Amino acid sequence: MRELGRHFVFELFGCDPQGLDDLKGIQDAMERGAEDAGMRVLGRVFHKFSPQGVTGVVIIAESHIAIHTWPELGYAAVDVFTCSTNTDPMKAFGRLKGVLKPKSMTVMELKRGLFMGDKV
Amino acid sequence: MRELGRHFVFELFGCDPQGLDDLKGIQDAMERGAEDAGMRVLGRVFHKFSPQGVTGVVIIAESHIAIHTWPELGYAAVDVFTCSTNTDPMKAFGRLKGVLKPKSMTVMELKRGLFMGDKV
Repeated sequence: MRELGRHFVFELFGCDPQGLDDLKGIQDAMERGAEDAGMRVLGRVFHKFSPQGVTGVVIIAESHIAIHTWPELGYAAVDVFTCSTNTDPMKAFGRLKGVLKPKSMTVMELKRGLFMGDKV
Repeated sequence: MRELGRHFVFELFGCDPQGLDDLKGIQDAMERGAEDAGMRVLGRVFHKFSPQGVTGVVIIAESHIAIHTWPELGYAAVDVFTCSTNTDPMKAFGRLKGVLKPKSMTVMELKRGLFMGDKV
């Protein structure tokens, strides 16, 4: 029994408020991080909220990387979903961690597309 | 203790292969579904794979809706992440379910941004 995709759910607390509100820095870290990880970037969509906060998703050939930030709370929710076994999700997260500087974080891995049979 | 966002993780099996490969139908169902649910669409990014498969994300004022499909396996991974308590995530999923026609599915809710204090 093998999964189609691995979905990493990051919870980041105590982040730098300026980093959390820096759309350009976040987007750059996500796209370059995806490349570091061996992923192929296909497109992106980002939005800067007023007065603060960033939402953005980069779609990759291997699935997606998403972020939502709350600068006023020092919090970010990050998802890295990859359906390739040849990519390194932690590498995709590395640059983002550098921009956001979380004081504490958790990461959970969800197996997506688990077939109980011999389909995959 | 209250969460900032609710993240619904859908696993859809036994879907209609044509529906899974219909980028336009999927995108329309996601955007109109978001509106049904009381969400505000801010942008989207979609990709059609060759020979088959669709990846797409709609970002909303309340976070995001994402999909990845494997028509050859009848499978789709769908995420609905909302940080509003006034939106109905199941409504956001309704039209998509109509397009994909899963024979079986599971849904799991993750609480995102849980602060152990009085911050939220």
